Amino acid sequence: MGRAKRLVLESLLPPRTGPAASGEGPVRGGPSPAEVVPTARAAGRVLAASVLAAEDVPGFDRSTVDGYAVRAADTFGAGESAPCLLFEAGQVPMGQEAGLAVGPGQAVSVPTGGMLPAGADAVVMIEHAVTPGSGLVEVSRPAAPGENVVRTGEDVGRGTEVLVAGRRLTPADLGVLAAVGVREVACRRSPLVVVIPTGDEIIPAASPSCGIGQVRDITSVALAALIERDGGEVRVTDIVPDRKEALAEAVSSALGAGGAAGDRPADLVLILGGSSVGARDHTAAVIAELGPPGVLFHGLALKPGKPTIYGLCGPRRAPVFGLPGHPVSGLVVYSLLARLALRIAGGETLPAWEAASLEETAQPALTARLATAVSSDQGRDEYLCVHLFWSKDASAGGLLAEPVPGKSGLITMLAHADGLVHIPVGRRGLEAGALVEVIPLV
Amino acid sequence: MGRAKRLVLESLLPPRTGPAASGEGPVRGGPSPAEVVPTARAAGRVLAASVLAAEDVPGFDRSTVDGYAVRAADTFGAGESAPCLLFEAGQVPMGQEAGLAVGPGQAVSVPTGGMLPAGADAVVMIEHAVTPGSGLVEVSRPAAPGENVVRTGEDVGRGTEVLVAGRRLTPADLGVLAAVGVREVACRRSPLVVVIPTGDEIIPAASPSCGIGQVRDITSVALAALIERDGGEVRVTDIVPDRKEALAEAVSSALGAGGAAGDRPADLVLILGGSSVGARDHTAAVIAELGPPGVLFHGLALKPGKPTIYGLCGPRRAPVFGLPGHPVSGLVVYSLLARLALRIAGGETLPAWEAASLEETAQPALTARLATAVSSDQGRDEYLCVHLFWSKDASAGGLLAEPVPGKSGLITMLAHADGLVHIPVGRRGLEAGALVEVIPLV
Repeated sequence: MGRAKRLVLESLLPPRTGPAASGEGPVRGGPSPAEVVPTARAAGRVLAASVLAAEDVPGFDRSTVDGYAVRAADTFGAGESAPCLLFEAGQVPMGQEAGLAVGPGQAVSVPTGGMLPAGADAVVMIEHAVTPGSGLVEVSRPAAPGENVVRTGEDVGRGTEVLVAGRRLTPADLGVLAAVGVREVACRRSPLVVVIPTGDEIIPAASPSCGIGQVRDITSVALAALIERDGGEVRVTDIVPDRKEALAEAVSSALGAGGAAGDRPADLVLILGGSSVGARDHTAAVIAELGPPGVLFHGLALKPGKPTIYGLCGPRRAPVFGLPGHPVSGLVVYSLLARLALRIAGGETLPAWEAASLEETAQPALTARLATAVSSDQGRDEYLCVHLFWSKDASAGGLLAEPVPGKSGLITMLAHADGLVHIPVGRRGLEAGALVEVIPLV
Repeated sequence: MGRAKRLVLESLLPPRTGPAASGEGPVRGGPSPAEVVPTARAAGRVLAASVLAAEDVPGFDRSTVDGYAVRAADTFGAGESAPCLLFEAGQVPMGQEAGLAVGPGQAVSVPTGGMLPAGADAVVMIEHAVTPGSGLVEVSRPAAPGENVVRTGEDVGRGTEVLVAGRRLTPADLGVLAAVGVREVACRRSPLVVVIPTGDEIIPAASPSCGIGQVRDITSVALAALIERDGGEVRVTDIVPDRKEALAEAVSSALGAGGAAGDRPADLVLILGGSSVGARDHTAAVIAELGPPGVLFHGLALKPGKPTIYGLCGPRRAPVFGLPGHPVSGLVVYSLLARLALRIAGGETLPAWEAASLEETAQPALTARLATAVSSDQGRDEYLCVHLFWSKDASAGGLLAEPVPGKSGLITMLAHADGLVHIPVGRRGLEAGALVEVIPLV
């Protein structure tokens, strides 16, 4: 798996020449074009260019507490037993210019977030001040210059780079953009993923009825939802029969080699394998013919997922996967490998730690205890479907992961699995009670 | 935190009377109405009713391998040195009715996924058969009845419950629905979340310019994206000034108590706190007045997130949160608590393990090592913003989490934090090198 992941990354990322140039997209054939998106609609999109702060944050010297704006020097030496006495010279209204100044021996009431009035250089917290009347303020603790104040641009100065090109924007990032006055951003166009279901027995998922010998196209439905969630635009083609010429035509057309005018060429192609031996051979042959370089690997030391094929095809050397026909296998290989290709095709710069952790899961996981021992095929990486439940048992309580018994083609497995447990190559299995990481199955 | 989570859950879930009735929505005032959604568009939606399989899966007796359909009894006693000889009686076409039968002493070629012909009760793998010519098939291993065959309805029988009401549909679930011939499903309407930004100093995020003393409404922008991702419909109101009457009117209107005709009442209200002391008092007072029961808790033993208020308000006893005004605090409290309320308001039945793990994070996390020691306030749960990076250091390599230095109100913290590390109440801090779970910051 580590080797497969490295092959996928190396085939799609530009050759390393020193530190990565953050402004450049890594997609073969050049980055996808950029489009301007309002900040509020940009969650999940990839930045086409680094973003600079359009204004200072904060835009004015601001108090971080409720209290009194003062000249710090006036409070030096103040203490519980010997408070210093200041004259209250007014109050700063929230959300407006202070409109007044603090002279020597004066204090101005200021709310949290309020503007620091001219002349003041610190704020005394309201807890350390008493107003005995007659317009007096007794301060019982000295304030250091700058105390409880955030200076103009101290958080982010105008022109500072706040988010770099290639970043996929999180909801929190939208807050960052809003904060620095950036109301629209240049984003990469969503990559087009063409899904090609194949197989003489396959019929569209939404067919009114399923005849004898026929099977509904399950994987395309699940994959389309995953691809959209992962930021891709998806096009599912008509189902391609188990003939090599038909598959070659469908893939060529998707890659734009023979596409209709106005059609956008695919940034990633996913061929959903026919389950027969012949169909797998067709996929490998078609990927080989549409090179160079064509096939980069054929077969994975992974369970489920062995019959996976990967290569680069067409004039733009776009990534093409032949995914296993088994729905669970197909979804696992998508999650572990094809999703990476989608992210890179969309112009995303993988976070350094994620790209570096080639042998690792590098996916958020839940920690659980395995409820039942499992054996494993030592020769390959294995991903076990598990169901999660909670036990209040004093000795073995907490979150437990129970392996879902699976038999090739069983849909119930998909319905009952909450996640995947990785059993690394070389392990003979896992004992009951072992702590495992469960990758949520999406 | 455990107590707050329990209060939120108990206030929204129906009283327990034995095992939960899966068909009933838990929302106060009754579940949100249902609407019919095409299966392919239903990812992230919540099932309003349990789904029964519309057809058998598989719809016919099916071979799980490439091989020969046989009568198992004909192969008994076969071995490498004494293969049994059968007559090849044709082949089953992929995707069609078998159209032929297997008689005694006969074998029919069948592809993986192909229909088992009449008369046959097992399939011999192609690896265990040789065709020496003259229409003969030599079988070198006995087949047991049912071997390499999946019977009609063996995976899922027609009428079997495949997914229960209250489940939030994953992309894989769409595959399950497609597989059992379900082309549309009854889903709960997305819950309406009304976000009410408050504060005299706050201006809309997209304002052309930010005046002296003013601050852009950052939190609403980030929250709106989070709410949509979590399956809610979001409406952000105009910014409410720091006057109790204005806030009361905005909350009442959102709850439908005094709303305009045709307006849908909110299923969840999030008041974004003004940062001044007075503003927080207004929020608590308004929630109290719009009860009973009104305020259920005021203040959390949580850092960041202390000034959180929660209650039930209005004729439908809808959940209302007063979230901290600090953007990082607001997003943390949303992720830990308000999101739960959103899910329940949307009719989702929390998975048993997730509801049971009240004291736990119960969120997928990455495992990392803390790069720098941190101290902590023992009196409350603390969530530390961390940046993730990868180290190749032989002694302390792997994924490392570096605390992001934060100061109240700092936007750069949001931009640099990759996730949160939980420091449970009672801990004095964490040592450098400690293994920690990092919840991705979204």
